[in-house]
Amino acid sequence: MAIVSITRVARFSAAHRLHNPALSDDENRRRFGKCNSPNYHGHNYTLEVTVAGTPDAITGYVLDFGDLDRIVDQACVDLLDHKNLDLDIPFLHGMLSTAENLVVACWKQLEPALRPSTLVRLRLWETENNYVEYDGN
Amino acid sequence: MAIVSITRVARFSAAHRLHNPALSDDENRRRFGKCNSPNYHGHNYTLEVTVAGTPDAITGYVLDFGDLDRIVDQACVDLLDHKNLDLDIPFLHGMLSTAENLVVACWKQLEPALRPSTLVRLRLWETENNYVEYDGN
Amino acid sequence: MAIVSITRVARFSAAHRLHNPALSDDENRRRFGKCNSPNYHGHNYTLEVTVAGTPDAITGYVLDFGDLDRIVDQACVDLLDHKNLDLDIPFLHGMLSTAENLVVACWKQLEPALRPSTLVRLRLWETENNYVEYDGN
Amino acid sequence: MAIVSITRVARFSAAHRLHNPALSDDENRRRFGKCNSPNYHGHNYTLEVTVAGTPDAITGYVLDFGDLDRIVDQACVDLLDHKNLDLDIPFLHGMLSTAENLVVACWKQLEPALRPSTLVRLRLWETENNYVEYDGN
Amino acid sequence: MAIVSITRVARFSAAHRLHNPALSDDENRRRFGKCNSPNYHGHNYTLEVTVAGTPDAITGYVLDFGDLDRIVDQACVDLLDHKNLDLDIPFLHGMLSTAENLVVACWKQLEPALRPSTLVRLRLWETENNYVEYDGN
Amino acid sequence: MAIVSITRVARFSAAHRLHNPALSDDENRRRFGKCNSPNYHGHNYTLEVTVAGTPDAITGYVLDFGDLDRIVDQACVDLLDHKNLDLDIPFLHGMLSTAENLVVACWKQLEPALRPSTLVRLRLWETENNYVEYDGN
Repeated sequence: MAIVSITRVARFSAAHRLHNPALSDDENRRRFGKCNSPNYHGHNYTLEVTVAGTPDAITGYVLDFGDLDRIVDQACVDLLDHKNLDLDIPFLHGMLSTAENLVVACWKQLEPALRPSTLVRLRLWETENNYVEYDGN
Repeated sequence: MAIVSITRVARFSAAHRLHNPALSDDENRRRFGKCNSPNYHGHNYTLEVTVAGTPDAITGYVLDFGDLDRIVDQACVDLLDHKNLDLDIPFLHGMLSTAENLVVACWKQLEPALRPSTLVRLRLWETENNYVEYDGN
Repeated sequence: MAIVSITRVARFSAAHRLHNPALSDDENRRRFGKCNSPNYHGHNYTLEVTVAGTPDAITGYVLDFGDLDRIVDQACVDLLDHKNLDLDIPFLHGMLSTAENLVVACWKQLEPALRPSTLVRLRLWETENNYVEYDGN
Repeated sequence: MAIVSITRVARFSAAHRLHNPALSDDENRRRFGKCNSPNYHGHNYTLEVTVAGTPDAITGYVLDFGDLDRIVDQACVDLLDHKNLDLDIPFLHGMLSTAENLVVACWKQLEPALRPSTLVRLRLWETENNYVEYDGN
Repeated sequence: MAIVSITRVARFSAAHRLHNPALSDDENRRRFGKCNSPNYHGHNYTLEVTVAGTPDAITGYVLDFGDLDRIVDQACVDLLDHKNLDLDIPFLHGMLSTAENLVVACWKQLEPALRPSTLVRLRLWETENNYVEYDGN
Repeated sequence: MAIVSITRVARFSAAHRLHNPALSDDENRRRFGKCNSPNYHGHNYTLEVTVAGTPDAITGYVLDFGDLDRIVDQACVDLLDHKNLDLDIPFLHGMLSTAENLVVACWKQLEPALRPSTLVRLRLWETENNYVEYDGN
């Protein structure tokens, strides 16, 4: 019984800013540089969602890519797309919107929504030169 | 005397929103959809800047790619990167920040800065599936 | 009044085979090689649709990318996606499904559907190393 | 003695259809949607083949990329390229041609052909937004 | 009778250095910077070769992509691949190996080799952020 | 306390040649083929550097991408960029410049430079179709 992983690549565009209200403005500028720019900037994010399992004997699917796509959109991507990560997203409230924190927050949205399928990895690209990964540990 | 064009690919990340203050909020939502989201969204923009001319007999360059890079950064990309296109950019003031208007505004920044080199084309990618082009006409 | 072109990148997956019934089987194999394989092969096609015009004074759009997307899907991409180009597509009937013929057929579908907007260029990628372009002439 | 993995990216274009003859036509349409389209569709597949080992002291190679390329072509890619996965491929006979089943079948072709080198991972892209992975377990 | 252009994307890896023997070493360093590094550096070049014409009534081809590929390899790419552009290539002799000069030299190799087909454009990528184009004028 | 990995994609262009002085010229040609070309060839290399850790409670960073970028440049990429791997690089001296050996040498440069952060994976692309990975074991 082979274990195969399947990955769907999803995309969303969002604004954000790195600013920790517990720090002074100077300290925020020092730590976050241009990412602290006051009126926000933004990115085209790419999220790779990986689910693993045994292909079904009837369909040959671990999970229908169409179903995976719908769950990823409903539980995560549609909530973030064309939004401000710092102002508009309840599940990011009180959290610095670094890629690291964002990928963990996406895991918390997606892991229960995908059950009984098993989420095994998220990769989140912030730009074409930067990405983060999280496997639930 | 061959005419060769050279193109530099530059990148910037910015926030924006499509909202025409001359229209009602309902009309803005109807025309701009999710791009009218009130707290901004953002993109990783890619700008391809094309200059044409005859390669120099001494250097073999139409224009040193390093010089092209510096001019593009100083006159355009560094001004837009990690900024809000609607709030932070004097040369976009009073203008809807569509890709179409943005590429024309970038031309107005870059064409004089590149003289005596000849700017012949700008291509601006807003997402990996959408781009606009302008050749000064 | 600037003229700006806007391009939408669309994608479809289809099967096809190159076989001219006016030629012998041997001649078909000789001319089309592995593209003549009897039970079809297929591609992920990428179609870049370019429309040119003056950005609207109210919206800043040449044409709303969302509207462009819908027209491209309805008049062309949804008709071809997950289909057999040689058996399933009335507007390709009796035509060899080369990339060259396909891009001209897509033009005939899209040019009237996009009016009063002006279609100015189609680029069709058959693989990541092969593409064709047509500008209506 | 460092263990390094090396990966070759190979490509093939093929037609296929998802249809389980044990199910009714209605059930096939319900489960497989547009992938059940009767006359086949197709994809440009990309296969990443990863072999791990210790670089040879004389050549600095885990395995010559040229040799890896030839083995991947002979044992897998040349057999699939410009073919119909459901009709033309003995080693896929009786199997639904999902990406999941296909990547496991490619493993069974490649693992013995690559010995004594050690195959450690296959990644198969069906479209630019969907891929599957298998590591032999 | 539609005119369609077809483009083949070819690739080669080569070493080169920018150094004009008519200039002093200091002047070479000043003008060419790190591209003047004495022991050469190198690139993975990508060359897009575009031929235009009317699709043939029998084959639907402007030019068989396989034939285009072979001509591009024989007249240009195989001569440059895994070579030193400044030392190994007779048709580049006495020429600074800038991308601008290289694309014009490739044109002189390819234009006669492609006749009676009509070469209409070459695009040469030196890195993923720099490319040059030449149309024979 | 989530463990997240972050990856920076860096790039450099370099010349090299595969030639083992302990082997005869014939044997070098037989084993290394066109990679043994006497006057060097070159590549645009892409290096993905992955560091893992717990996001900091104050900054939300595992490591500031800007800091990661600077360390990767200083300890590795700036030393290799626009250089000859076989002649110019002390830390590659006496080593065949295969991708396998190069990725291990980059690890030895980067692992101490990144401390106290934890380097967990390097992926080095030599061409768009070949890459190697090393995780320190």
